[in-house]
Amino acid sequence: MAKLTFEDFTPGRIFRSGDAEMTASAIVAFARKYDPQPQHLDPDLARRSQFGTLVASGWHTAAVTMRLQLEAGLCEVEGGLVGAGMEKLAWPIPVHPGDRLHAEIEVLDARPSRSKPDRGLVRLRTIARNQNGAIVQEMVATVVAPRRRQEESTS
Amino acid sequence: MAKLTFEDFTPGRIFRSGDAEMTASAIVAFARKYDPQPQHLDPDLARRSQFGTLVASGWHTAAVTMRLQLEAGLCEVEGGLVGAGMEKLAWPIPVHPGDRLHAEIEVLDARPSRSKPDRGLVRLRTIARNQNGAIVQEMVATVVAPRRRQEESTS
Repeated sequence: MAKLTFEDFTPGRIFRSGDAEMTASAIVAFARKYDPQPQHLDPDLARRSQFGTLVASGWHTAAVTMRLQLEAGLCEVEGGLVGAGMEKLAWPIPVHPGDRLHAEIEVLDARPSRSKPDRGLVRLRTIARNQNGAIVQEMVATVVAPRRRQEESTS
Repeated sequence: MAKLTFEDFTPGRIFRSGDAEMTASAIVAFARKYDPQPQHLDPDLARRSQFGTLVASGWHTAAVTMRLQLEAGLCEVEGGLVGAGMEKLAWPIPVHPGDRLHAEIEVLDARPSRSKPDRGLVRLRTIARNQNGAIVQEMVATVVAPRRRQEESTS
């Protein structure tokens, strides 16, 4: 598969991932390391929280969505998927144990870099949904993509 | 320690964390699970990437910064530290193995919820820096905090 370059990111193009299960043990393991709050750590503690049940850390959902983005084909961006900034990150509803997430990445717009002619900036909206189609994460981010090298065209 | 409520978030107040080391093995372990790209996975592959050296996934930095926020005292927010939205998340420079991160959380503003009188919305800017004081992550997010229950004051 040819590497993806700036020219492949036409506005409106959509990349789709497979799905990933959020198991209770993965939710708890992530929380112990990075977000040790009652609603993420333990079903009993979570029951007494405002969530009433174990829910994934939003940062866990974000990390899994990162992997889904790569699986959707963005691992093929030449030079890697490198962020230039994020203007939105939201978790409208919680992720529960057993939820299966998938991601859809839409190219919002793409423009050549003004300062660096060998690359462009691509604005992407990534939506992660659960198995019921409900949105669990919405993100709008700008990434850097190299421009395709011109073929030698002097005759 | 009394739980933190909306009233404790006075604009300008700053919460400070201790520090956390980003080891090479933690960087690689996170990348294998969530962000398997050459620059995060392996020193040799990273050398051939645009970074030239192993760097942490931004999502790893974000996850560690989440923990630093809790350690800075935000674990004491009554009901947990629950996000209502993020308007900025940026990683100005990469995190390298051996870097020690710390976080500073500043209260930007705070306003009572219009629809729910028992809570308020607090806008926080969280800056994570490395051991040299350089900013490795900047985030502006709004979190929900319960309002202090009024004492019975009828006479």
